[in-house]
Amino acid sequence: MNKIFRAAVVGYGNIGRYVVEALEEAQDFEVAGVVRRSITNPPAELARYAVVDDISKLDAVDVAIVCSPSRSVEETATKILAKGICTVDSFDIHSEIAGLRARLSEVALAGGAVAVVSAGWDPGSDSVVRALLEACAPNGLTHTNFGPGMSMGHSVAARAVAGVRDALSMTIPVGGGIHRREVFIELEPGADFTTIAAAVKADPYFSKDDTHVEQVDDVKALVDMHHGVHIEREGTSGRTAEQRFEFSMRIHNPALTAQILVSTARGAVRLQARKLCGAYTMIEIPPIDLLPGDRDEIIRRLV
Amino acid sequence: MNKIFRAAVVGYGNIGRYVVEALEEAQDFEVAGVVRRSITNPPAELARYAVVDDISKLDAVDVAIVCSPSRSVEETATKILAKGICTVDSFDIHSEIAGLRARLSEVALAGGAVAVVSAGWDPGSDSVVRALLEACAPNGLTHTNFGPGMSMGHSVAARAVAGVRDALSMTIPVGGGIHRREVFIELEPGADFTTIAAAVKADPYFSKDDTHVEQVDDVKALVDMHHGVHIEREGTSGRTAEQRFEFSMRIHNPALTAQILVSTARGAVRLQARKLCGAYTMIEIPPIDLLPGDRDEIIRRLV
Repeated sequence: MNKIFRAAVVGYGNIGRYVVEALEEAQDFEVAGVVRRSITNPPAELARYAVVDDISKLDAVDVAIVCSPSRSVEETATKILAKGICTVDSFDIHSEIAGLRARLSEVALAGGAVAVVSAGWDPGSDSVVRALLEACAPNGLTHTNFGPGMSMGHSVAARAVAGVRDALSMTIPVGGGIHRREVFIELEPGADFTTIAAAVKADPYFSKDDTHVEQVDDVKALVDMHHGVHIEREGTSGRTAEQRFEFSMRIHNPALTAQILVSTARGAVRLQARKLCGAYTMIEIPPIDLLPGDRDEIIRRLV
Repeated sequence: MNKIFRAAVVGYGNIGRYVVEALEEAQDFEVAGVVRRSITNPPAELARYAVVDDISKLDAVDVAIVCSPSRSVEETATKILAKGICTVDSFDIHSEIAGLRARLSEVALAGGAVAVVSAGWDPGSDSVVRALLEACAPNGLTHTNFGPGMSMGHSVAARAVAGVRDALSMTIPVGGGIHRREVFIELEPGADFTTIAAAVKADPYFSKDDTHVEQVDDVKALVDMHHGVHIEREGTSGRTAEQRFEFSMRIHNPALTAQILVSTARGAVRLQARKLCGAYTMIEIPPIDLLPGDRDEIIRRLV
C-alpha cells in the first residue's frame, strides 16, 4: 500500500485548476486544500476542499504545489519551506533558475524540506531529455524547437503595448532552435495598427526574432492550449559520430505542466524522507521517484 | 577541476573496444587497465594500458565497466563489488533485471560499493524515456519499436541451428511494439535450406514473431552496426487526454552502449561518494550524475 501524500495547491489560476485534477487522479495523493488570495466564493469544483488564505491553516501538508507566476515563486516558496513543507514550482525564466535553486536550497536545508524548482515541461521534462542525450552522445549539438503554440510571456508583452486590447503571440518553429513570432492583435478603438505593430516588433521580447503582427477582431477565438516541442541532437558517442536522436510531443500545455508538478511533488516528498534536503531541478531527481507504486514493479515494467 | 575517475574495462569484445574509446574521450576518466582472460598479444590500441587477467592486479580502480555477455555479468560483478569497487554492466535480459539488481544490491551494500545494472540503451536510456513519459502522462500506452537493426541474441540463436554456418537476424518494426524477423542464413555444405528455415521458425526465439528466412552466400557482407528505436506514448495528464510523445534514434549500437556505460560509471562513483551504496538501474539515478563537469554549469546550460 502506498503512502498517501497530502498536497496543498498554492494559487488557483490556469495551472492550479489542472493540478487539482491531476491530484484527484493520482492514487497516492490527497488534496490538503487550496491556498489563494481571495477565499470567498470559491469555484464549485473546490466545494469539498478547504480554501484558505494561508497554508498554515491547512492540516499536515507534505508538499505545496506552487502555481503562482514565476515572479512570485521565490517569495511564496521561501515562506513554505521555512515551515518544513516541501515545495515544487514551474519557475520558467531559464537564466534565473540556477540562482533561484541556490537560494531556495539554503532555506530548504534550514527548514528540513525539499524544493524542486522549474518542474514543468521546459524547463522540466525537456531538460531531462537534453541531459540524457548528452550522456548518450557527449559531443554534438542539441536544438530545442518549440511550438506551434501560444507563448504566455510574449502574449503578455504584446498586451502591454498601449492601444492593444488583447493579444496572442504564437511561437512557430523554423528549425535549428530558431522561432518566428506570429502576433495577433485586437485594437482599442481609435488605435493605429501600423504604430502598434512597430511597437510590438521593437519590444525586447520580439526584437531579436522574425515577428509578424496581424490585426484581428477577436483574439479569444484563436486561443488554444496546445503546444509542442521537437528536440534534436546529432552527436558522437566515444569517437563514433553516427548518433541521431529526436524527441517530440504535442500536448495540452497547462495539463502537462500540472501533471509534471504533481509527479515531481511525489519525488520531493520522497527525497525529504531520505533526508536529502535542499533544492533540486528535475535533472537531479531519479526518474523512478516521479512514479507511484512499488519500485520493483516499476523496474520490471519499464526497465 | 573535475576528479579523475579510474575505470577498469572488464572484457574486451565488441563493447569493450568502444568503452576504451569513450573513456579516452571523457574529460574526467582514465583507463586503469583492461581485464581479459587472454592477456598475451593484446591488440595494438591497448599497448599503453595494463592488460591483466584479474582486476586485483590493477591499481586504485574506482569503477569496473563490465563488458562481458549478459550470462556472466552476475558472477563477474559479484567478485568486483565484494572488493569495494563499483560496477556497471549492460545486462539485457529484461525479465531478469529486477532479480539481478536485488542480488547485486546485497553484495554492493556489503562491499561499500555501487552497482548499476542494465545500463545500455534498452534496457537503459530507453527505460529513462519510458519512466519520464509515464510521469508526464500517467494513463496510457507506451510502444517501443526496435530497429531496423541486427539482434545479437536472435543471430546467435539462428547460428545454433545444425547446418547453419553463419546467420544474421534483423529486427524490423511493424508498429505498435510488434516486430518482424528477417533471418539471413549461410548454409554448411550439403545442408537443406527448407529444413533449416523450418527449424529457425520453430525456435522459441522466433516462433512468436512473423519470421522470414532467406539463404545468402555471405552473411558477413550484410552485417552493419546501426540500430534504432521509436518509442511512442499517447496518454492522459490528470484528466486531459491530449498528450502525444515520441522518442526516436538511429545509432551505432556498440558505440552507444559503450558511451552509456561510461556515463553511468560516472554516476556509480558519485553515488558511492554520497554513501548511497547498493544496486541501481538507470531510472534510479539522477540524470545530472551521468554528465561531467560542474553541476551549476550543467543546470544553467540544460535546464
